[in-house]
Amino acid sequence: MNQSILEVFEPLFYPKSLAVIGASAELAKFGNIILSAIMEIGYQGKIYPVNPEGGEINGLKVYPSLKEIPGEVDLAILTIPAPLVSGALEECLRKGVKGAEILTSGFRETGTPEGRRMEEDITRIARRGIRILGPNCFGIYCPESGLTILPGQNFSRATGPVGFFSQSGGLCADLGQIAKGLSMRFSKMVSYGNGCDVAACDLLEYFFADEKTRIIAGYIEGVEDGPIFLRILKENRRKKPVILWKAGLTATGSQAVMSHTGSLSGSEKVWNSALKQAGVIQVGSAEELVDTIYAFLYLPNTAGPRVAVMGGGGAISVAASDSLERLGLSVPPFSWPILQKLKTSFPPVGNSLRNPVDLGNPMIPPSMLRKVMEAAGEDEGIDTLIVIQILFYILFQVRHRLRMDDRLLSQFSFQPELLKACEEVRAKYQKPIILILPDITTEAGMIDLEAEWRRERDVYQAAGFPVFKTIDRASRALGHFISFQSRNRPWQP
Amino acid sequence: MNQSILEVFEPLFYPKSLAVIGASAELAKFGNIILSAIMEIGYQGKIYPVNPEGGEINGLKVYPSLKEIPGEVDLAILTIPAPLVSGALEECLRKGVKGAEILTSGFRETGTPEGRRMEEDITRIARRGIRILGPNCFGIYCPESGLTILPGQNFSRATGPVGFFSQSGGLCADLGQIAKGLSMRFSKMVSYGNGCDVAACDLLEYFFADEKTRIIAGYIEGVEDGPIFLRILKENRRKKPVILWKAGLTATGSQAVMSHTGSLSGSEKVWNSALKQAGVIQVGSAEELVDTIYAFLYLPNTAGPRVAVMGGGGAISVAASDSLERLGLSVPPFSWPILQKLKTSFPPVGNSLRNPVDLGNPMIPPSMLRKVMEAAGEDEGIDTLIVIQILFYILFQVRHRLRMDDRLLSQFSFQPELLKACEEVRAKYQKPIILILPDITTEAGMIDLEAEWRRERDVYQAAGFPVFKTIDRASRALGHFISFQSRNRPWQP
Repeated sequence: MNQSILEVFEPLFYPKSLAVIGASAELAKFGNIILSAIMEIGYQGKIYPVNPEGGEINGLKVYPSLKEIPGEVDLAILTIPAPLVSGALEECLRKGVKGAEILTSGFRETGTPEGRRMEEDITRIARRGIRILGPNCFGIYCPESGLTILPGQNFSRATGPVGFFSQSGGLCADLGQIAKGLSMRFSKMVSYGNGCDVAACDLLEYFFADEKTRIIAGYIEGVEDGPIFLRILKENRRKKPVILWKAGLTATGSQAVMSHTGSLSGSEKVWNSALKQAGVIQVGSAEELVDTIYAFLYLPNTAGPRVAVMGGGGAISVAASDSLERLGLSVPPFSWPILQKLKTSFPPVGNSLRNPVDLGNPMIPPSMLRKVMEAAGEDEGIDTLIVIQILFYILFQVRHRLRMDDRLLSQFSFQPELLKACEEVRAKYQKPIILILPDITTEAGMIDLEAEWRRERDVYQAAGFPVFKTIDRASRALGHFISFQSRNRPWQP
Repeated sequence: MNQSILEVFEPLFYPKSLAVIGASAELAKFGNIILSAIMEIGYQGKIYPVNPEGGEINGLKVYPSLKEIPGEVDLAILTIPAPLVSGALEECLRKGVKGAEILTSGFRETGTPEGRRMEEDITRIARRGIRILGPNCFGIYCPESGLTILPGQNFSRATGPVGFFSQSGGLCADLGQIAKGLSMRFSKMVSYGNGCDVAACDLLEYFFADEKTRIIAGYIEGVEDGPIFLRILKENRRKKPVILWKAGLTATGSQAVMSHTGSLSGSEKVWNSALKQAGVIQVGSAEELVDTIYAFLYLPNTAGPRVAVMGGGGAISVAASDSLERLGLSVPPFSWPILQKLKTSFPPVGNSLRNPVDLGNPMIPPSMLRKVMEAAGEDEGIDTLIVIQILFYILFQVRHRLRMDDRLLSQFSFQPELLKACEEVRAKYQKPIILILPDITTEAGMIDLEAEWRRERDVYQAAGFPVFKTIDRASRALGHFISFQSRNRPWQP
């Protein structure tokens, strides 16, 4: 049997039928949660619940054992206690099941000889013709086939370019939720836990080969084989960006890793330099991971390091300058003729037009912002535009001042006009525009403003503009994008 | 005249009467916005709008000039064009006005000889018996006296321990809004813009002397006199914590500073080392500034560097460990007897109890979390508890699984029970508890979850527990607190 990496993963990602071994009618049990999630997200293949007690769960007939299932089973999802797992896997082998997902924990990560032994057993079984994900994992989310992780019943069914692999199931669960607000779509998301068989190297190889995946991201605590992992990265470095959060790099973190997935996390210095050499975009938190994936999703290849920053409010311009320069980007002054032209449109005081552009007033009319955007578009020394819109809480106040508290906030919003300006300037000059929409009101009583914020964000995102909450987060994500791009030209997003 | 620093600022912070020179009936003009804001927030002294056109604004009689005002005027707020400012200040001197706030811009920050000259004129006038704030500023917010900045009409009227001074008015406006969601209260907040007279040194001195101020925070772009500024800091370093964002430390940032407030921002290396020596807590963004003030508001003196982290989900435990260790804090394992006792309450697999404690399930029942909190309380090797509650989006799913979408989310929340556990453990062991409540759902359709999040945060805050959205932000803020504390014992928060 000499399968390609795509063939290996076919039954795991696109099973025509699956069995949930340990299916349960009890709502709180993994065996119910995962079965219900897969049904609810709308998996269209055959689903066979397996439980010695038989009966019916969620309207499906329960099979007392795997061998009594009449048809073929591509994928088995195991939620039974750890000591029963290897026996069930032997049954899977006899039934010809091609892949198994072991959600059960209690293996290597316990640090006990018994846990380690049980995990070694599974690994040996895997060598005999079945590929195994886990144990101690949350499974696979594949919107194309309708598979989902635990608990991922409300994940999006839309397929997208992000391939994500993670030793943390919780992070997968979080990312699937966060993604919904960001229109971030996945080809596959894989929680692989302890990684006793399928692990980082295989998944990396798969994602490089998978045509549906354009951006690879991962959370790893340790890898099964460092040199192979790095070789795969290096050989493919120009193909697709790889965004990695290597956790557990401190002494304390490394201890935490040991009891989480039983991985060896390795030295920070060695990892940092190896990942850098391998062209990896290294991140250090869930927020940075999300922001960086987001930047790669939304930024076009024309994004470059010379940034024009425009908005109202001096501190944010200063902060943007500090933040961008620290990340190796620049905020160069506009060229002399562009600046002179721009000056004719603005009053002589109360603003600073040089770049960063501070228009002085936080509630900038779109027509004014548009003039600055046009200038930045025209200026050959500028690659990327960052537009800071800080009108939200001010809108709230304006409404109040106009004694119109009964009117919807959206009726005071400049959104349609500013969106149009963004679209037209982008089309005319082919330069990317990043929006900053700060959300500074978190009072319980101002929830309608938050609703308005989300609507506005969604409108920009739908038009292909990335939206960040702070200039620091935007700068950091842009910095990663530009740095990857400059190392790996001609990479095409 | 040999006034104490408190006397100097008395007419600025507690004016019995004020004049708005340049008051306007036009809603969009500064002269209207500031007048309306002061009326709306409920300033109780006499307000005299001044405008040569006379008439009435917001129901108040308008005086054609300052000299026609019948009574005394403590504070003048100027919103007239820059070339008229020095003339108006001469009138203020003649009228015996004690302080002036110049909101107008167009001075030193323009970089023109004319702008610089006009600012020099103001500075010279200030030496003749009037203290001047600005120009190019948003003014003063003093909840005790009912003064507010532009636009701050909806700021809280509750007084609190934070004294904030800032060269950015926009940052003041933001901070006043952010503060409302965080129950962060101010003694005074001062936007001083270019700082032609009253500036960082005076404000720092005032806040050290002011009994109402316990925590000092500031945003500075440059200072009028570096050695004096540092001397004031050093002489008072054990009295009150000073949290400073010194912006414009990069080359580009320094350029932006020049056109924002015309300040000289200085060298990064020199500033970093000087501020460190002066015992200042240095921060680098608005978010870090807010989080750090927040930590000083909520953390008691018993907070220490040895942290117990507890929650469900392995990645977050690993991230917490990495994050805390990088900030010089530690996550030490529980002592042997405590760990053994704890183990008797939990199943042998599916969790890790060593510290960080990963209970495996993101929706941890409060009774389970309480056992870990008790252990951390009892353990003499632990100073501070971080409790991660990640149940929000999961609640949403649970409600759905129970087919109870018509019920309020709060009916599924463990909040009352967990809050009680936090309160009792804190009272019993006198160790601070920090809550992490991640907010990962930002979908437009999930706004009710956000409302629930804010309610839950408010309940914890009202009980005196700080709430952070991410472990990184909590760690950073705690790190600043601990580091200040260890340098400045016996400082009492």
